[in-house]
Formats: sequence, structure tokens, C-alpha cells
Amino acid sequence: MRVLGIDPGLTRCGMGVVDGSVGRPLSLVDVNVLRTSSDLPVAQRLVTIEKGVEAWIEEHRPDAVAVERVFARSDVSTVMGTAQASGIAMVVAARRGLPIALHTPSEVKAAVSGSGRATKQQVGAMVTRILRLDAPPKPADAADALALAITHIWRGGAQARLEQAVARQTRAVPARAVPARAVPRRTP
Amino acid sequence: MRVLGIDPGLTRCGMGVVDGSVGRPLSLVDVNVLRTSSDLPVAQRLVTIEKGVEAWIEEHRPDAVAVERVFARSDVSTVMGTAQASGIAMVVAARRGLPIALHTPSEVKAAVSGSGRATKQQVGAMVTRILRLDAPPKPADAADALALAITHIWRGGAQARLEQAVARQTRAVPARAVPARAVPRRTP
Repeated sequence: MRVLGIDPGLTRCGMGVVDGSVGRPLSLVDVNVLRTSSDLPVAQRLVTIEKGVEAWIEEHRPDAVAVERVFARSDVSTVMGTAQASGIAMVVAARRGLPIALHTPSEVKAAVSGSGRATKQQVGAMVTRILRLDAPPKPADAADALALAITHIWRGGAQARLEQAVARQTRAVPARAVPARAVPRRTP
Repeated sequence: MRVLGIDPGLTRCGMGVVDGSVGRPLSLVDVNVLRTSSDLPVAQRLVTIEKGVEAWIEEHRPDAVAVERVFARSDVSTVMGTAQASGIAMVVAARRGLPIALHTPSEVKAAVSGSGRATKQQVGAMVTRILRLDAPPKPADAADALALAITHIWRGGAQARLEQAVARQTRAVPARAVPARAVPRRTP
């Protein structure tokens, strides 16, 4: 199984591709960090991220994409851009029918290091050991993207298969045809 | 000038198209609210929004797109989805080379009602009057999308033209090579 892990961000978007399966050694395929200048309009930056993720999916043909789940309680100054970048990454993958899984930072830390409170250094060190690299991938976004891909493989891709099944089942129904009761109202 | 206003949201994404220019009566072209079910995976919902916005741009051929600027201080439970939906809307517009402007809720309220603290009802009432409608557009997301388009026309589209010029200038150059002085900073 080949997994593309994406640590989304407007300024730095980490992308890591890992091959392997549960119980076997994993191997690094490629890792990169997409960067966009904060001097550009957000829309242009998002288009750059879209093209970058598309190019990587095209080149590496992953079986699944694992994206970090973004929380509103993260750093307020960057969380909006992170959410937008993650949305773009998900759309690029979903358009190709790829299974998409979201893993929280705690889940990733716990999967690779055994502790949901591991530091960046610990995550980097474990990624280095798991993938038998000479040195920790830099910057941290690169290591985080690889940790996401590792997490996804080790968790067996159960979540992704579930979501794919749901998506397949619902794809035939146009959005507007969804019965009113299926759309819960968030605000009165 | 024809402007597509977008009030982004995962559950309800308002889209309103308005024709007109500064100092002349404005007219409603079309208004709609894209809905996606919260039962679907986020990626599928974002793809539905992408297709919906694309279809509307294709149908109405706006000269510019105005998107509500999302803040992290909004309602935490919905802000991530709102950010993701806004990112998708921006990418769809940017891919077509359309100028994109972001207006804050306060700017929109102030533009249509004279007060940055106007209520939803006041905004709806002013949109109804400005576009000479028989009744306020429902739901509020529809009225908000139209208010965004009106705001954009009345502000003269200056921001959008600036960003378009920058985008055109920088399109040939990779993101990293853009000179820092080219884009005015919004926040210190």
C-alpha cells in the first residue's frame, strides 16, 4: 500500500509518500515541502498548493491520502490557512476517487512514538528510525507528512475504506436531491 | 460589472450574482444556496461545493468574485468547514483568472446598511431594497451572498483589480521569486 501523507499549511505544506503494510518494514518513496509566499493573495497560494498536490498524486499514484485533521483550537493566526490548504488537498484527492483519511496530531504522535504528547523531535526521530533514514527529514512539516503516512498504514486504512464505501454509496445522488431531513440545521 | 458573491459554508454555501456599477441601480441576476449533508465525508462535501461554484461561474460568467473573509474568532464548531469552503471557492475562481476580493462581515454590513453591526434582518431588508425585490432572500446565506456582491460593486472592485494585476504580473514567475513589495500587507 502506498500512502501520501499531507501536513497542510499555506506557507509550508508537507507531502510524504510511504510504501508498506502492517507488520512489514516501511519505505520512504519521496518527501517534499510545498512553499508559497505570504506576499501572494491567498487564492493564488491555494492554486499553487492544488497544483503541487495534483502533481504529486500524478507522479506517485498513492492508494490513499492521509491528511492532518485541523482543529479550530490551533494557533489562530495560521489555522484558517491550514484549514483552507487541507480542504484543497482533500478535494484534489477526492476528485480522483482516492480514499482520504484524517488523523489528528495526537493520533499521529501516538502511532509513531507511543505517546500522544511526543515532541517534534521525538516524531522526527521515530520517522527516521521507522523509515531507516540517515537523518530526520527537514523541515518538521516533511517529517509530519511522513508520520501521517506511516500512521495511516499502521492503522490499516480502516477509516479510509469506510469513507470510501460511504462516498461510493452516495455518489450517485446529486447534492440538491438530498432529502431535507438529511441536512441537519446548525443554526435555528 | 457582474459580481458573484459567495458566503462560504460546508452545510450552506450562499451564492448571489448581481449586475451593476457604482452610482447606478443594481439588479439581481440569480441567487442560490448550495447545501451538502453533514452525513457525507468532508472531502465529498467540498467536491460538491467545488462543482456548484464552477457551474455557477460557467453559467453566469461574473467579472469578479467576492468571498466573505473568514475569521478564526467565528463560531468554533463551523469555522473550519467555512474556511475550507472559502478556500475551494477561491481556487475555483483563481483557476479561471477571475479577480477575487475578500470582504469582512463588518465591511459588508457597513456597505449595505451603514452600520458594521447591522443584524441579519437589517442586512436582508437592505438587500431587498437595493435590489428592488419583493421579499428578503431566504435563507440568510442567500441574502449575505448578495450583500457581498453589492459591497464589491460599491467598493469599486479596487482590491480585486489590484490583486488581479499582481496575479498577472506574477503568474509567469514561480511563487518564490515574487518581489516582496508587490502586494500590500493587510495586517501589520
